[in-house]
Amino acid sequence: MSALQRLQALNIVLPPITASVAAYAPCVRAGGTLYVSGHLARRNGAVWPGRLGEDITLEEGRLAARSAAIDLLATLQHVTGNLDAIAQISKLNAMVASTTEFFEQHLVANGASELFAEIFPDKGPHARSAFGVVQLPLRACIEVDLVAELAPLAAV
Amino acid sequence: MSALQRLQALNIVLPPITASVAAYAPCVRAGGTLYVSGHLARRNGAVWPGRLGEDITLEEGRLAARSAAIDLLATLQHVTGNLDAIAQISKLNAMVASTTEFFEQHLVANGASELFAEIFPDKGPHARSAFGVVQLPLRACIEVDLVAELAPLAAV
Amino acid sequence: MSALQRLQALNIVLPPITASVAAYAPCVRAGGTLYVSGHLARRNGAVWPGRLGEDITLEEGRLAARSAAIDLLATLQHVTGNLDAIAQISKLNAMVASTTEFFEQHLVANGASELFAEIFPDKGPHARSAFGVVQLPLRACIEVDLVAELAPLAAV
Repeated sequence: MSALQRLQALNIVLPPITASVAAYAPCVRAGGTLYVSGHLARRNGAVWPGRLGEDITLEEGRLAARSAAIDLLATLQHVTGNLDAIAQISKLNAMVASTTEFFEQHLVANGASELFAEIFPDKGPHARSAFGVVQLPLRACIEVDLVAELAPLAAV
Repeated sequence: MSALQRLQALNIVLPPITASVAAYAPCVRAGGTLYVSGHLARRNGAVWPGRLGEDITLEEGRLAARSAAIDLLATLQHVTGNLDAIAQISKLNAMVASTTEFFEQHLVANGASELFAEIFPDKGPHARSAFGVVQLPLRACIEVDLVAELAPLAAV
Repeated sequence: MSALQRLQALNIVLPPITASVAAYAPCVRAGGTLYVSGHLARRNGAVWPGRLGEDITLEEGRLAARSAAIDLLATLQHVTGNLDAIAQISKLNAMVASTTEFFEQHLVANGASELFAEIFPDKGPHARSAFGVVQLPLRACIEVDLVAELAPLAAV
């Protein structure tokens, strides 16, 4: 089963690539390594605002992290033309807009990590850091970036 | 036109390398990859203190990010001896000292990204993450780090 | 003297690897590069809670960063089977739970950097970023992640 078929089985439609809101690219390749920019959580096509511990529940936060992962997959699909050319997600960083009283950033980040595990079940887990930030661009509740590796023979 | 000539055309003089304030190096090479440490914004040779949303305006923040980018270029020049040996900036991270009410970290970070675009116009944009942190070393308003790639045949 | 002998000389016993608290791996290899997940500071086997500027002193913070470095070394030992297969620590990130009034994240991070310098004295310093975050998973006071490089001929 391909990664795209797994997305379809989950009823996930990859959104069109959104233009960067600033002077950078969504993804840059260096040899076989892909550096993917921070992607903000979105809901209904707009940035998903809020902070954990204030106006976003843990369950909403997990869904928000999942939404960022869907957009990351869209970027990876756009760059590779074939998600199966991804050998692995090497490292994921989850920046969670948080109050001082919220300390479950790791559980929020699971919303992204678990989607990658579902879409890339044979490629092993990724390394990860999750931490609470005071505020994110456009008041987003979560931002996720990652480093991925292309399969050695992938012609991208 | 070389990268150094572009700097000169912008009247930018690369500052001398400052010693790290702690037990680390400004830049480490791994194969063709350069990992560059977080560089703090500076003004008139001293750390530029403040937080966005409090005592630093957006325009000042952009200039502060640009100042960190100038110091990053100085480090890259020092390490390579030739900025044109840089194949690309792969990933840039902008940590912006922010209040909860400031949410334009991406616009602040553009102050760095746009300078790299001016100095390396043929090398494509970088991937990027920008987020708001509660405080930075020495009260700096902005810290920027990056990952760069050397040109394959660069003898550094 | 091997890295393990240096640990012994410092009376440091590497702890057993703790299971990840979420859907990720402690370390992922991509070619010769190791991406190591954020490790939380621990004291007496449990997460070391608190924030710098509030209920953690600078000296405690340094010890907390050192505790995270010990756990990072345990993960590297577990993954490589031989710490001497590590060619270098390329980049270290120190996320320090901080109030707005604490701005010595770099000195806290030295607790980790200096231990790596003691254990890997011949491998050069690492690049580093340190910044203040509003909160960390499980109220940890410090989280440290890193990127390391394997020696070219290391058979891991």
